Amino acid sequence: MTKGGGVLAVGSMALDTVKTPFGSVRDALGGSVSYFSASARFFTPVSVVAVVGSDFPARHLALFKRLGVDTTGIQRVQGGRTFRWQGVYSYDLNNPRTLKTELNVFEKFRPQLSEANRRKRVVFLANIDPDIQHSVLSQVRNPVFTACDTMNFWIENKRPSLLRLLKKVDVFLCNDAEARELSGEHNLIHAARWALSRGLKLLVIKKGEHGVVCFSKQGVFTVPAYLLEKVFDPTGAGDTFAGGFIGSLARGGRLDLSRVRRAVIYGSVMASYNVESFSLNRLAALKRADIERRFRHFRELTRF
Amino acid sequence: MTKGGGVLAVGSMALDTVKTPFGSVRDALGGSVSYFSASARFFTPVSVVAVVGSDFPARHLALFKRLGVDTTGIQRVQGGRTFRWQGVYSYDLNNPRTLKTELNVFEKFRPQLSEANRRKRVVFLANIDPDIQHSVLSQVRNPVFTACDTMNFWIENKRPSLLRLLKKVDVFLCNDAEARELSGEHNLIHAARWALSRGLKLLVIKKGEHGVVCFSKQGVFTVPAYLLEKVFDPTGAGDTFAGGFIGSLARGGRLDLSRVRRAVIYGSVMASYNVESFSLNRLAALKRADIERRFRHFRELTRF
Repeated sequence: MTKGGGVLAVGSMALDTVKTPFGSVRDALGGSVSYFSASARFFTPVSVVAVVGSDFPARHLALFKRLGVDTTGIQRVQGGRTFRWQGVYSYDLNNPRTLKTELNVFEKFRPQLSEANRRKRVVFLANIDPDIQHSVLSQVRNPVFTACDTMNFWIENKRPSLLRLLKKVDVFLCNDAEARELSGEHNLIHAARWALSRGLKLLVIKKGEHGVVCFSKQGVFTVPAYLLEKVFDPTGAGDTFAGGFIGSLARGGRLDLSRVRRAVIYGSVMASYNVESFSLNRLAALKRADIERRFRHFRELTRF
Repeated sequence: MTKGGGVLAVGSMALDTVKTPFGSVRDALGGSVSYFSASARFFTPVSVVAVVGSDFPARHLALFKRLGVDTTGIQRVQGGRTFRWQGVYSYDLNNPRTLKTELNVFEKFRPQLSEANRRKRVVFLANIDPDIQHSVLSQVRNPVFTACDTMNFWIENKRPSLLRLLKKVDVFLCNDAEARELSGEHNLIHAARWALSRGLKLLVIKKGEHGVVCFSKQGVFTVPAYLLEKVFDPTGAGDTFAGGFIGSLARGGRLDLSRVRRAVIYGSVMASYNVESFSLNRLAALKRADIERRFRHFRELTRF
């Protein structure tokens, strides 16, 4: 049996109602694996595993197919209602205020992987109950590396399960507040030391408009965010970053620091495009040449 | 008449009482030109112009002399009391809470430059009433470049004077909140466009633990802060940055972007050392080799 190619992403598909100082959308395509896959597909084949309701517009599924994303792992629950999130951003675009979360069909999401998905080289577990992340990991067959994201809710309510997960995955992505809360350390170097001592190969701390810090046993890499003239809607920036980051790393498979550095830049470039418009609008229209152009500009902005 | 060498720095010398989560000091040596000069002296000769009271310990003046700083421009007011600042930092080390400010002799500070100080190649106007910054500029003879800092108090209370100053100086240093408040633009690219359109050659926005963004008509440079395991006391970090930045630039005199990039890194390195201890303790003990070592490590942390 040969190992399958590409990345498996397990997480949410959602319909988001978002208001920012610059506009609003209602029931727009969102969810962690939506952003992740629309970003990662530039770098590697992506298969998504998610659940939607019968209200989920067929045009969204058609979009993913058009983007080359393998949607065979998307379960459509007849009569069910899709996961919905409603949030509002003030001018401080780092932290949205959640107005409403309706889990709907996502509440009973217990992913069962197909044989093809069990054999993916790389696995990304988007933010979801860590017990479910464990269940997915137990189904996959010896991937080259695995990565997961989480959120404060799980740090507070499923801490033991999350700590066990840190021993099983290779890469952990979180924001700075989550790194501090999980480790109990205010200083990020101390937080990283704590995390790496639990078996992680790579800790990637996303700081939104302040960039990314990435820790591995090989060293540290820190980079500012790509400077933007207009941030329109930050929703999905973290998962879009993860898509570029994991997608770029998946091409080679190894986690050495020189490849990790470039992957962080690709992730940052993808996130910078994503926040320029609502939903997946910018990601869906993006060309590979746009990505390379901004990668080069990133180098120009930061070299010394 | 030949142009004098080195940098002239005009601003405050103070006795600071500071409490951080990690300790406290009482009446410790502080003030903008203290930090600036202890940092800039590694790169260029520095002359300071400031005022102190008769309570200002002779050992502080001796320290500056030992560090090679020209102190002939420090006026000592007999019977006067030195400027004092008292502040406390919580774990959010970006923003101190000021408990007390006693201007004392600093209130009547009207710097009169010596002939030697009028002929310096480079002038740094630390945070002080913009009317006084104008007065200093009117005394200097055709420097290669001039730079100034400010604070929110002057933006709010001396705005017209500050706007006139922006037309006269080459380099403006401020933090991100000040850049936003001064320009009325939330987005830093827009704020920079506004500032550069007023005649500035260089806008340097200091973002504390989140690094620096530097704008010139030639382009943009953005860099994260040097990642530290222990931030002990952030007091003076901005002026220490300015010392490394201006000092490094003063060696050549030109403001082209490749030199500006290296100067930002030197400024960041100096600031990173300064926050590792109270007062000027770390800066005073620093060796040139320490600076170059951390400069190289900075490159290692950020290259891709």
